[in-house]
Amino acid sequence: MKVRVGINGYGTIGKRVASAVAAQDDMEVIGVTKTRPSYEAYLASASGFPLYTASSEQVANFEKEGIEIKGTLDDLMDVVDIMIDATPGGVGEAYLPRYQKAGIKAIFQGGERHELAGVSFNAYANYSDAWGADFARVVSCNTTGLVRTLFPLDRDIGIERVSATLVRRGADPSDNKGSALNNLEPSLKLPTHHGPDVKTIIPGINITTMAVKSPTTLMHLHCIMADLEKEVKEEDILATWEAVPRVKFVSGKQGMKGTANIMEMAKDLERQRGDLMEVAVWQDGIKMVGKTLYYYQAVHQESDVVPENIDCIRSMMEIECDPARSIKITDNSLGINE
Amino acid sequence: MKVRVGINGYGTIGKRVASAVAAQDDMEVIGVTKTRPSYEAYLASASGFPLYTASSEQVANFEKEGIEIKGTLDDLMDVVDIMIDATPGGVGEAYLPRYQKAGIKAIFQGGERHELAGVSFNAYANYSDAWGADFARVVSCNTTGLVRTLFPLDRDIGIERVSATLVRRGADPSDNKGSALNNLEPSLKLPTHHGPDVKTIIPGINITTMAVKSPTTLMHLHCIMADLEKEVKEEDILATWEAVPRVKFVSGKQGMKGTANIMEMAKDLERQRGDLMEVAVWQDGIKMVGKTLYYYQAVHQESDVVPENIDCIRSMMEIECDPARSIKITDNSLGINE
Amino acid sequence: MKVRVGINGYGTIGKRVASAVAAQDDMEVIGVTKTRPSYEAYLASASGFPLYTASSEQVANFEKEGIEIKGTLDDLMDVVDIMIDATPGGVGEAYLPRYQKAGIKAIFQGGERHELAGVSFNAYANYSDAWGADFARVVSCNTTGLVRTLFPLDRDIGIERVSATLVRRGADPSDNKGSALNNLEPSLKLPTHHGPDVKTIIPGINITTMAVKSPTTLMHLHCIMADLEKEVKEEDILATWEAVPRVKFVSGKQGMKGTANIMEMAKDLERQRGDLMEVAVWQDGIKMVGKTLYYYQAVHQESDVVPENIDCIRSMMEIECDPARSIKITDNSLGINE
Amino acid sequence: MKVRVGINGYGTIGKRVASAVAAQDDMEVIGVTKTRPSYEAYLASASGFPLYTASSEQVANFEKEGIEIKGTLDDLMDVVDIMIDATPGGVGEAYLPRYQKAGIKAIFQGGERHELAGVSFNAYANYSDAWGADFARVVSCNTTGLVRTLFPLDRDIGIERVSATLVRRGADPSDNKGSALNNLEPSLKLPTHHGPDVKTIIPGINITTMAVKSPTTLMHLHCIMADLEKEVKEEDILATWEAVPRVKFVSGKQGMKGTANIMEMAKDLERQRGDLMEVAVWQDGIKMVGKTLYYYQAVHQESDVVPENIDCIRSMMEIECDPARSIKITDNSLGINE
Repeated sequence: MKVRVGINGYGTIGKRVASAVAAQDDMEVIGVTKTRPSYEAYLASASGFPLYTASSEQVANFEKEGIEIKGTLDDLMDVVDIMIDATPGGVGEAYLPRYQKAGIKAIFQGGERHELAGVSFNAYANYSDAWGADFARVVSCNTTGLVRTLFPLDRDIGIERVSATLVRRGADPSDNKGSALNNLEPSLKLPTHHGPDVKTIIPGINITTMAVKSPTTLMHLHCIMADLEKEVKEEDILATWEAVPRVKFVSGKQGMKGTANIMEMAKDLERQRGDLMEVAVWQDGIKMVGKTLYYYQAVHQESDVVPENIDCIRSMMEIECDPARSIKITDNSLGINE
Repeated sequence: MKVRVGINGYGTIGKRVASAVAAQDDMEVIGVTKTRPSYEAYLASASGFPLYTASSEQVANFEKEGIEIKGTLDDLMDVVDIMIDATPGGVGEAYLPRYQKAGIKAIFQGGERHELAGVSFNAYANYSDAWGADFARVVSCNTTGLVRTLFPLDRDIGIERVSATLVRRGADPSDNKGSALNNLEPSLKLPTHHGPDVKTIIPGINITTMAVKSPTTLMHLHCIMADLEKEVKEEDILATWEAVPRVKFVSGKQGMKGTANIMEMAKDLERQRGDLMEVAVWQDGIKMVGKTLYYYQAVHQESDVVPENIDCIRSMMEIECDPARSIKITDNSLGINE
Repeated sequence: MKVRVGINGYGTIGKRVASAVAAQDDMEVIGVTKTRPSYEAYLASASGFPLYTASSEQVANFEKEGIEIKGTLDDLMDVVDIMIDATPGGVGEAYLPRYQKAGIKAIFQGGERHELAGVSFNAYANYSDAWGADFARVVSCNTTGLVRTLFPLDRDIGIERVSATLVRRGADPSDNKGSALNNLEPSLKLPTHHGPDVKTIIPGINITTMAVKSPTTLMHLHCIMADLEKEVKEEDILATWEAVPRVKFVSGKQGMKGTANIMEMAKDLERQRGDLMEVAVWQDGIKMVGKTLYYYQAVHQESDVVPENIDCIRSMMEIECDPARSIKITDNSLGINE
Repeated sequence: MKVRVGINGYGTIGKRVASAVAAQDDMEVIGVTKTRPSYEAYLASASGFPLYTASSEQVANFEKEGIEIKGTLDDLMDVVDIMIDATPGGVGEAYLPRYQKAGIKAIFQGGERHELAGVSFNAYANYSDAWGADFARVVSCNTTGLVRTLFPLDRDIGIERVSATLVRRGADPSDNKGSALNNLEPSLKLPTHHGPDVKTIIPGINITTMAVKSPTTLMHLHCIMADLEKEVKEEDILATWEAVPRVKFVSGKQGMKGTANIMEMAKDLERQRGDLMEVAVWQDGIKMVGKTLYYYQAVHQESDVVPENIDCIRSMMEIECDPARSIKITDNSLGINE
């Protein structure tokens, strides 16, 4: 029997996780929720995902727009095994008791605190930590990207200290609230929260981060300096990352000059929605100086956590105990690492 | 037997036409050309399209990068029935004599002059004009967009005069040459060339245009004022466009506030590369004041001419005499108007 | 004795009007108001303008930041002859009864309705309409720009009909709320309000407008098509505008390609704050086709209304009855038309 | 007698240095050169700076546009004591022998190699190194910004190691060549050249840098992590920088959220052209963690080297032996640190 999945919040992340769940053989989308009859509500209908509202008062608003509503969140909780909470950052906290009461499991996103779920998740780094758990949190897009390259480095070579500067995209592609148009904005609360968040997955790592918001919409760009425990060659770094999933090399020499080129590549690769779910690492932007490694990577903030949610479902629902096998199934279904 | 199609210039337009040809039952991609071993060359290989160089001297550059070359443009011309010339604007002119000498047909893009091919083409407006022709020109993205809404208006209601302002995207998504970053640039040569170009498809129409370049990468936005021959209702306008292909209504009320939302929608609709091949018309941005119609439409400059190229092949190769049937085959294969 | 001027709302417009008032011999800034101890509050102190709060509860917030407060708006109203209401659009309406009760005159900005003040104002077009008035409204930046070129055309040559498309900057330079980053957004409510607003100054004119928001911060760009009453030459158009104030010609041939170049020019001309208070018209972007005139102009939304406010003070306070003389005094003091 | 200064290349830097020279009592602008009759040529005339062409063949082009030419570069070299070489990066090298032959001194900009001039210059850090020199190089805008904060830290507290990420603006405000519109581009050649360039001023410093180009036009933003020799308090850091010239504190709490706000502030401060010649440091973005200091600073790439050029003239011409006095004269004349 397939795992019955609900999506609470069919927005940027929710709609992508829904599509990804629908692409798996061992799980299915039972329903998705919206609070308002916005564009995504039409999209859910068009995609064949039964639509639920967060509360019963909202039903009328949808019906006025001719959008069929299957029920409310309460109804949806009755018929799913696990809920993907893709509500806005910080909102998931209020839903946890309701999931608990309904006796269903739930996966939160990186906008929630680690303590809320108790388990923070990255498929490659700590798949088994979520095994059978009632609640887990898939870490944020930036943390996911950082963990994908830092975890294998730390395990295989050893990291003494990481300093990373995150140049963030300012807003989702059609959002008008994130960033002034011609502005660079530093995150003045230092060090930024990204370092501590990485430690929820790689506990002992010594990492500090700074961050700047840029008026772009495509990807975050990480500038990373890592003091390693020993002096290795750049080929060793490449080999380390070649051996792990969800790291994709791109080459400036072959025309991948920036985040816009990478997103164009994702479209050309016929990825769904033009998403790039791997972290993209510039292979000709990797440099060892003594024991210090310098590299750049780009993170597609809207999608890199999507496959992590899928694997997290498998771990929490105890339907696949081998992380590598879950990752492979997920990645094959989504066209990753082809 | 399938029509054998070559693509001369596997770039922004060429790669999209290649994918579209590959999606048809009655034609196939025999090969594509590149002048340099750039990213698109790797992409062509990955997509399974045999790769040719424009000239024999270029072969070595590709082989040095490990990219297999099937031959030169001369070799490709020997084995195709028709060439899609997707070389940069103005460059196609130099190739015409070579196509002629090789005894193959060719389709040029909107960057070439009308006189070069003699026939300018839009599938819905003048499909039969290209019937059996040796050469034709698919008009530019902007002209294609204008023709799609103006041709049926002119035919069904009658247009006395059109004044349009084109707010252009400044550059392709990963291009760094088109537009200053925080700048609006008017096209000072007035009226702009877009009006005369529309007349190559709708000969008698009275149209003048102005244009402004904006620092965006997604779509052109047309602001159109049309004096009609009679006073009609907005529903009549909607009905006129509902009856024709490749016009897609979007609604500001449903969240389609701008070009970024529309491109997001195209991704959600799972269009290939996230392209929108129709012209998008804001249904809640249509207004009649007396006999004057005001409306906005958005044009995805990278892709709206792609289905037109496919239909143009069918007309020139005389494999489908009914325009409506060709359009329907093309649109079904590309997910248009679903 | 100098006219005693207060500025209610020391923000984008208010701070500029304050500087301009301070540059006149016949008026002085008595005080400016702020509601919060933001950057502009510090700036007011640094500029030597006495600072008042909108209400008495706000005083403590300023004092906590070490900013000296002279009093409240009530106190300021006691000591000024006229108040420049530069509060956010629509907010001025609530203040009018208070100005009335205090027995002072007030100038509102273009964000208020015409009916609020009863008199809409442009120095060159209708200076005397505000003569001795208690309340007047300086029309918006876009309307001011349109009136500056359309009024003399209509008077000297005659206008039958105007169609204008306004490509708007998306937000003030450091604002993060106006515009999505890579988006073009049409104003779907058609025709837009700009046409009717022009009629508050040029009552009989036949004008309709469309508008598009672009992700830029510098200037609005107007694309104007005007059917004139007679066929004239482009030189006649130039001569018409050369004879009026606050129209500045720029030339694409001399490098003024877009709004960014024009703002650079304003800095090079050592205008205060790098503002351009004239409307900039591209002299090589003026074209007559039959009796129809096409032209482009750019409007610096933050500053073009500033000199209009100064002249409006002179008219309302009855200190200079000759519009041309008031305009000349204002322009000389601000470096305009040097 | 005043030092007679020529400016070879009246562009972004050249025009600013010319204005700054003109603001000094002990030097004067004898002439400036242009290669083409562009906008800046008109500006030079308007500013009263005699105009010279780089070569005699160019004279006719200027005269055709009605721009008066005083002579050629050779003529200008005959009548100046020192030339500010503000030609494009890498071009200055070809001019050095000509300056040498003409027997005049010259100052190059940061686009030239250190070795060309032999002396790299920053007024506060090494004023006396250029004393009496025939040639010197004012380091680039980024290097100047880095030196202004790192030099006093290194001297007063001691720096063990610096890692900096430079988020660069993509292009000058009206330039269309620097940056794709919606793109973040890493500098793949690592470490970037900025570190070695800092060492031309602070020889022993241990610094490595990474860089990313962003689609903005206003300022570079530096994210700096510095391991200090001892643990100090944030107040100590502030005190160190308060004691040195050309460091300006800005506060996020007071509304200086990003580079756009800072440039708005520079306009409000009535700086010429709205330039900010100091390096701007966020005082609420300074953080000590153990012995590691984190801070952000913003550099106005068009102007921060301007006062350095002025001081460099004084040092090379031996007209003021006290660096502090030269800096003070310069800063007072330009409104810096008021």
